[in-house]
Formats: sequence, structure tokens, C-alpha cells
Amino acid sequence: MKLIDNLLVVGMGLMGGSILKAAREAGVAKRRLGIDRDPDTVRKSLAMGIIHEGFTQAREVPPGRTLAILATHLDAFREMTEELLPHLPDEVVITDVGSVKEAVVEELSPILATRNIPFVGGHPIAGTEKSGVENSVKDLFAGARVILTPTPETPREALELVRRFWQALGTRVEEMDPQHHDTVFAAVSHLPHAATYALVKTMGDAEKELGDLLRYSGGGFKDFTRIAASNPWMWREIFRLNRDQVLAFLRRFHTTLEEMERLLEEEDWNALEAIMEEARWIRRGLD
Amino acid sequence: MKLIDNLLVVGMGLMGGSILKAAREAGVAKRRLGIDRDPDTVRKSLAMGIIHEGFTQAREVPPGRTLAILATHLDAFREMTEELLPHLPDEVVITDVGSVKEAVVEELSPILATRNIPFVGGHPIAGTEKSGVENSVKDLFAGARVILTPTPETPREALELVRRFWQALGTRVEEMDPQHHDTVFAAVSHLPHAATYALVKTMGDAEKELGDLLRYSGGGFKDFTRIAASNPWMWREIFRLNRDQVLAFLRRFHTTLEEMERLLEEEDWNALEAIMEEARWIRRGLD
Repeated sequence: MKLIDNLLVVGMGLMGGSILKAAREAGVAKRRLGIDRDPDTVRKSLAMGIIHEGFTQAREVPPGRTLAILATHLDAFREMTEELLPHLPDEVVITDVGSVKEAVVEELSPILATRNIPFVGGHPIAGTEKSGVENSVKDLFAGARVILTPTPETPREALELVRRFWQALGTRVEEMDPQHHDTVFAAVSHLPHAATYALVKTMGDAEKELGDLLRYSGGGFKDFTRIAASNPWMWREIFRLNRDQVLAFLRRFHTTLEEMERLLEEEDWNALEAIMEEARWIRRGLD
Repeated sequence: MKLIDNLLVVGMGLMGGSILKAAREAGVAKRRLGIDRDPDTVRKSLAMGIIHEGFTQAREVPPGRTLAILATHLDAFREMTEELLPHLPDEVVITDVGSVKEAVVEELSPILATRNIPFVGGHPIAGTEKSGVENSVKDLFAGARVILTPTPETPREALELVRRFWQALGTRVEEMDPQHHDTVFAAVSHLPHAATYALVKTMGDAEKELGDLLRYSGGGFKDFTRIAASNPWMWREIFRLNRDQVLAFLRRFHTTLEEMERLLEEEDWNALEAIMEEARWIRRGLD
């Protein structure tokens, strides 16, 4: 027996497309359905064989055990959820792949509660700077972590369904409460993105004043700044929805930078080296 | 005829070893000589066949056209130059591979002037986070930029010799004055390193307070922070020798970060997005 009858993916970009490819590979759903506002994306997805049926607007989903996954940008979650609501079968669980969890859980849970539909927040830790269903890959999630963020109100069976779905796609599933998730990812993802955007912007501004700089950047700088090629609209939404935590980590970073500035001003090379030594030790632990 | 009779590399780490390998490949020197304080490095270099003779201290260099390259850490340049001085033949040019130029040129030129030996500052834009002669590679410099930093006092023939040497190794040679070099590299290299060390340190401090964070970091964070695995001692010296320029760029970065913080505080999402859009545009220009 298949884990689910219907897999409905809302938003077929890099994430949605990769989920559908991985789900096809794993054979977890009888039917794979897709919604995307862009008719071209729907056509491409049908042509790739990753969905059986695709639409640009919500349509009646056939009865049966259904998992609906929100994989649009964060700012479309509310609208898509409201649009889906009347079309979903009774046996449905909704989850998402958003990079922010507390705001999403708070926004969607009351809407879904009107039909008593359970929501399980989710965040697969995978992606590339690329986007679009044409860049989706079936093994994007192989070995990746997926964080699920149930609340005390989340029904256990709904959580288990989402967990089993992601496990079937080869991921390692962990649970966190939504707020803790947002703290962790403000640190390891949102702050690094903010810092990179700031660094590249700083270079651009300096170049206007001082002339050619960036053409002398080597591989290190390119690695370091690769994430500044990410989608600004997506990051705007992440920063908006996780504003307080992002601000808190920006301020922490700011404090460390000020400390380093102070050490340079005072020419305290030993203390500066100690900070770098500690950072190297921490960084080496990640490999 | 070979370009030079003697190639003397002082400090056989990743850079020195790679220069020797590339020089062997290109066949630019009759004799390749090496000095390294570590007897084990000298033994290894001899065993690898990258030097004909190797020593732990300066020895008489045979007569003939000689290029001596300082490839130790920056803090040993002065000592090695003083030690080499009485042992060099008359037809010698000295260059280096240090990441900072103004301080090096100012420090070494007067020492060398006592024997009327020309110094040409150099900086090959190549490297890895690895170190040691055992990690050296013959094509480290293939297609890389090398910046030479002559001053009005540098004899033209000395500059030409160093230029032809690096060109023979497959590099693209450019000239800059030493101070401009230090501005450019404070921007594209020293600031990114300082920012990365600060970011990783911030994570480490936050983790002590908040518990597990870093194990949730994905590929983006690892790319972003790879350069924090670089040698802290080496970076201490770069920051020390290019202190004013590094401080100036840290302050610029600091200002951009404060601007982003302000936009988050004021929830000015359009302005924040505009910064990120500009950064993406700049970053894409580097690929």
C-alpha cells in the first residue's frame, strides 16, 4: 500500500519539483498533483512526468489520504492555503518547506482550524542558488535534514505521516519547536545571508569610490559570496517573517566585529589571533 | 638559454613548493635552491625533486643570474632578507609572495639598498586553505593573476625579470603601486577573512548560550565560512601589516550592516530588498 493516495505540491520551483521527483522515485503516492500560478511551469512539470495532473488554481482533490505541501515563496502561503481550503478531501495533512516556522505556523493554523485540517510545519535543509522546476533534482534531499515543527496542538498521526513521507525520501527528520527553529536558522542561515549581502554591497559601494576592486577577487571571495546570488525577494520574506531573531543575530555579529575593530585599533594582535584561532577550531568541526 | 641560473625559494610551504614545481615544469632555471627552517621540509623537497639543493640557513648562492623569492610567512621576511644578504651573488633580484605590499616594500628596500640589490614586490593571487610543501601543486598559478608592485626606484630590468619569470609559470602579470594593492586586497581578501572569522566566532559564542546551532548549518554556511579555516598566524600578520586599510574596510562593512539593521528595525522591506538586489547583481558579475 502506498503511504498516501494524493501528493499535492503547491508551487513547483526547485523545491517543489525536487520533492515531486524524489516522491516519484520513492513511489510513496498513488497520484502526484501540482499547482503553480505559471502555466508554463505546469506544462513543463507535466512534460517531465513529475505530476499526473497540474493546474494554475486549486481544483477538487480526489478523495483519499492526502499530503499537501506548500512550496511557493513564503508570501504566497496564506493565499494558497485559503484557496485550497474548500478543495481538500477530509483525510488531508498540510505541511510546508518554508525557511521560517513560527510566523507560518501562527498564520496558517487558524485558517486550517476552520476545517479542522492539521498543519505540520516543515523545513528541509537543502537547496541551491538555482531556482525553477527545470533545475529540480531527485536527490536534492538525499541524506538531508528535515526539521518538523509540531506544536502541542498538532495531532500525532499528522506528524507521523509527514515524518514518514520525508523519511521515504531519504531524509533525516528532526523535531523542534517553531521558535527554536527560527533561532537556529537565524544563526546558521539568515545571518550569513545578511552578512554576505552586506559584504558584497560594501564592495560595490567602495568600487564606485575607489575604482576596480572586484576583478581582483579570488576563489575565496567567490565561495564566500556565492549565497549573495540568492533570490532577494525570497530573503526579504525570510527577514520580514523572522525579523526579531535576524536582528538579534545581526547585533551579535556587529558586536564581534566591533571587538575585532577595537583590537586592530589597539594593535592587540594576540587577542585578535585568539579570536581567529577559536573561529578556525569551530569551523574545522564542521567538515 | 634559461631565464635564470639560480632560483632560490625561501620558505617551502604551499606557495614556495608550488613555485618550485611550476618552475621545474616550465624549465626556467638551471638550479633550483631552497631554504626552510624545518629540516623535514628540506628533506621532503629534496625527495620530491623540486630542489637540487636545500638548506635550513642561508648559504653561498653560486654566481649567475639569480631570482630569490621570499615565500615564508610575512613576519620572517626581514630576518630572512638580512640573513641572505651576504650570501647572494651580484646579479640578483629579490621578490616575494606576501599578501601585503606597502609595509614589505618599506621594510625590505632599505636593507637591500645597502648592497644595491633590487626588490620587486609581488603577490600571486592563488592559494588554498591547505599549507605545507606536501600540498603544493604545479598548476597552482596556471591562469592566476600576479600583482607586481614596483616603486619609482625599482630598476626596469629587475621588474622585467620578475615579470618574465611569472609569465613563464603561466600567470597574468599586472602592476600596481604598493598602496593601491593594499587597498584592493583589504577589500577583496582581508575584509572577507575578517568578516568570516567574526561570523564563525559569533556562532561559537551564541552556541555557548543557546545550545546546538552549528550542526544545523548547511552547505551555504560551510562555503561561506571555509576561509575561516585559514591560518590565524598568517592572518594576524596580514592584519598587522595592513592595519589601516583593513580597519577602513571593516568600518565600511560595519556601516552597511548598521544600515541593514536600521531597515529591519523600521521594517523598510523595499529598501532592504533593493540592497540585496544590488548585491546579487554585483555578485553575478563575478561568475
